[in-house]
Amino acid sequence: MSQMRKDVFTGRWVIMGGTDTVSPTDFQFRPFTRGDGFCPFCESNESSTPPEVFAIRRPGSLPNGLGWQVRVVPNNQPRLRIESDLGRRGEGFHDLMNGIGAHEIIAETPRHDRSLHELEVEEIAEVVRAYIARIVDLERDTRMRYVLIFKNHGEEAGAHTISHSISQLMALPVTPRTIKSKLMVARDYYAQKERCLYCDVLEQELESGRRLIAENQDFAAFAPFASRFPFEMRVIPKFHGSAFSQITSTQGRNLAQILRNVLQKLDLTLGRPPYSLSLQDRPFLRPRKGYWETIEADFHWHLELLPQVFRITGFEWASGFFYNPVPPEIVARCLTPRSEG
Amino acid sequence: MSQMRKDVFTGRWVIMGGTDTVSPTDFQFRPFTRGDGFCPFCESNESSTPPEVFAIRRPGSLPNGLGWQVRVVPNNQPRLRIESDLGRRGEGFHDLMNGIGAHEIIAETPRHDRSLHELEVEEIAEVVRAYIARIVDLERDTRMRYVLIFKNHGEEAGAHTISHSISQLMALPVTPRTIKSKLMVARDYYAQKERCLYCDVLEQELESGRRLIAENQDFAAFAPFASRFPFEMRVIPKFHGSAFSQITSTQGRNLAQILRNVLQKLDLTLGRPPYSLSLQDRPFLRPRKGYWETIEADFHWHLELLPQVFRITGFEWASGFFYNPVPPEIVARCLTPRSEG
Repeated sequence: MSQMRKDVFTGRWVIMGGTDTVSPTDFQFRPFTRGDGFCPFCESNESSTPPEVFAIRRPGSLPNGLGWQVRVVPNNQPRLRIESDLGRRGEGFHDLMNGIGAHEIIAETPRHDRSLHELEVEEIAEVVRAYIARIVDLERDTRMRYVLIFKNHGEEAGAHTISHSISQLMALPVTPRTIKSKLMVARDYYAQKERCLYCDVLEQELESGRRLIAENQDFAAFAPFASRFPFEMRVIPKFHGSAFSQITSTQGRNLAQILRNVLQKLDLTLGRPPYSLSLQDRPFLRPRKGYWETIEADFHWHLELLPQVFRITGFEWASGFFYNPVPPEIVARCLTPRSEG
Repeated sequence: MSQMRKDVFTGRWVIMGGTDTVSPTDFQFRPFTRGDGFCPFCESNESSTPPEVFAIRRPGSLPNGLGWQVRVVPNNQPRLRIESDLGRRGEGFHDLMNGIGAHEIIAETPRHDRSLHELEVEEIAEVVRAYIARIVDLERDTRMRYVLIFKNHGEEAGAHTISHSISQLMALPVTPRTIKSKLMVARDYYAQKERCLYCDVLEQELESGRRLIAENQDFAAFAPFASRFPFEMRVIPKFHGSAFSQITSTQGRNLAQILRNVLQKLDLTLGRPPYSLSLQDRPFLRPRKGYWETIEADFHWHLELLPQVFRITGFEWASGFFYNPVPPEIVARCLTPRSEG
C-alpha cells in the first residue's frame, strides 16, 4: 500500500509508492551528453564573456586571460540587473518592483570535457570557495536579501544551451518563498524546543541509517523521508550553521568530498541522469522585524539534489503535493551507504 | 527592464521578462499528437476498465455498456486506495499515514479523435456535470478532505500513456498545500476587509481589461498579473462562490463555453501546446478548528490553466520563484480579448 508522508521541514505531503527495486530503465530521461560547439566558458575563450567578477587563478595570470581554475562572470542575458533602484510600487491590488539583482555564471573548470563530479576533490573545493567569495561580496549590497546558487546538469534539468560545467548565482532583493517557509517552520520549532530542527532530524537519520547515503567527518547525505522525487538527496552539515559562507576551508573540502561522492553514485546507478543542485542558505541578516532575529540559531543550511528523472504534471501543479513511486529507503539501499572520510 | 511581480493570492514572486511579442516558435514543446493503439476509454472497450462509478448515458443504455457520453472509472493503477483506515502515525520526527483516497479517470467523450476543446459546449457541460456528481458523492466519505480534479493534455504535460481526452480525480485525506496557502491569504484579507480577495481583484481586472482574455455572463478568463508561465490563464466565476459543486446548470454551461473558448485560442495561437488544467476548489467543510469556518465567505473557486511550454529548472526548485519571459499583458493582446456570451 502507498503511504502519505509529511516533510517535517516544510509541511509538504508526498504520496509515496511502494516500489521495491529500481533500475535506470524505470525512468525516462535523456542521459547527459556534452555539446561540442563553440563554448564561451572554455579556457582561451575568456574574451567571449563579460569581464570576470572573480576568479581563482595561477599566481601571475591576468584577469580575463588564461590560467584560471574557477571563473565567475556576469550572465550576458541576465534575468536581473544590478543598475537602478528597487522602485517598489503598487498597481491597484498588485505589487511590483524593478528587476534588480545580479545574475552570474560560475565556470567550475576551464575544461569542457569534465562534469563537476569528474573533478578532483581539491578542484571542487575551489568551486565552493568561489561560491563563498561571491556571497560575501554581494552581501555588502544592502538592496539584496538573498543569494541563490544553483546548478542545472543535463538538458532536462534546464541546461539547454550550455554543456560546460557551470553553476549559476542570483542575488535577489526578496527572500525566496522556499527559504522563507523553511525558516518559518524552523523558527516555530526552535521557539518551542530551543533546539535546531535540522540538528534533531539529522541525529535521528544518522541513528536509524535507513536513508543514509554517505557520511564524512563534517557532512551527511541522505534521501529525505518525504522525498518528492526518486533519488532526491540532501547534503547537510553535521555541525550547526545557518550561513554557508561561514564554513572553514577543511569543512569546504569535506563538502567537496561528499558532493563528489553522491554525484558519482547517482551517475553510476542511474546512468548519467540530469539533475538540479541548489544551496539552501539563510537570507542576509538585515535589520528587520520579528523572525529574522533568531535565524542564526534556528536555520541550518543544506544542499538539495534533485535528479530530473520525472516531469511534474497537472497533479503537482494543482496541489503542491508530489507523487513519488520510489521510497527513500530503497534509494539509500541502491546507493550502498558506507562511511567515508 | 525586467520586473519582479508578487502574486496577491499566494505571496509568490515572479521575475517577469520584457518580451514584446510572442510566437509559437519562441517555445520548445511537442505539439499534441494522438496515439492510435488500443484505448480502454473508447466506446465499446468498456470491459477493459474497472466498472464505472458514474456515467452520463443515453436513456435505456446499461452500465459498462455502449451509449455513454461521459464515463468515470477507478484508475486501474491508483496512487491511493479507498480501502483501510487512515492509520496516522509517527516515525520519530516524521509523520505518515496510509495512502487512502480515490483515484478516478473521467473519460470526457467516447470518441478517441476529440480533445476537450473540440467538443460541443453542451458536451463539455456534461463533463462539468460529471465532476460535480463525483465531488458530491466523495464528500460523503468523512475521511476525505479534498477532491482534486486535473487534466494533463499532451505528452509534456504528463499524459504519457493515454491520448484519449480524460480528466483525473483524486480524493485526498489532507488539504493540498496550494489550496491551504491560498485559503490562508484569502482568510486574512477577509478578516481585514470583510470582502472576498478574489472578487476584489477580479473587479479590478475587468475594469482595466489589460489582462482579460475572455468573458461571458458568469465567468472571466484572464492572464494573471504574476503569471509563472507564458500563457498561464485563470478562469474565475464573476459571482462569489467557494464551492464548485454548487454552481447551477446555466453556470455550468457558461463555464463550458468559456473553457472551450480559451482552450481553442491557446491551440490556435501556440499550435497545439501541451497544458495542465486544474480546479482550485475549497476543501470539504468538516468540523475543525479556526480558519475553516469562514471558507464560504473568503474563498472563491477557479480554474488554473498552465500551458507546458517551459520546463522548470534548478532555479524554480531552489527558490519557489519563477522566471517568465512573457508578461500577461502581451498574452492577453495575443489572444485578442473580446466580450462573449
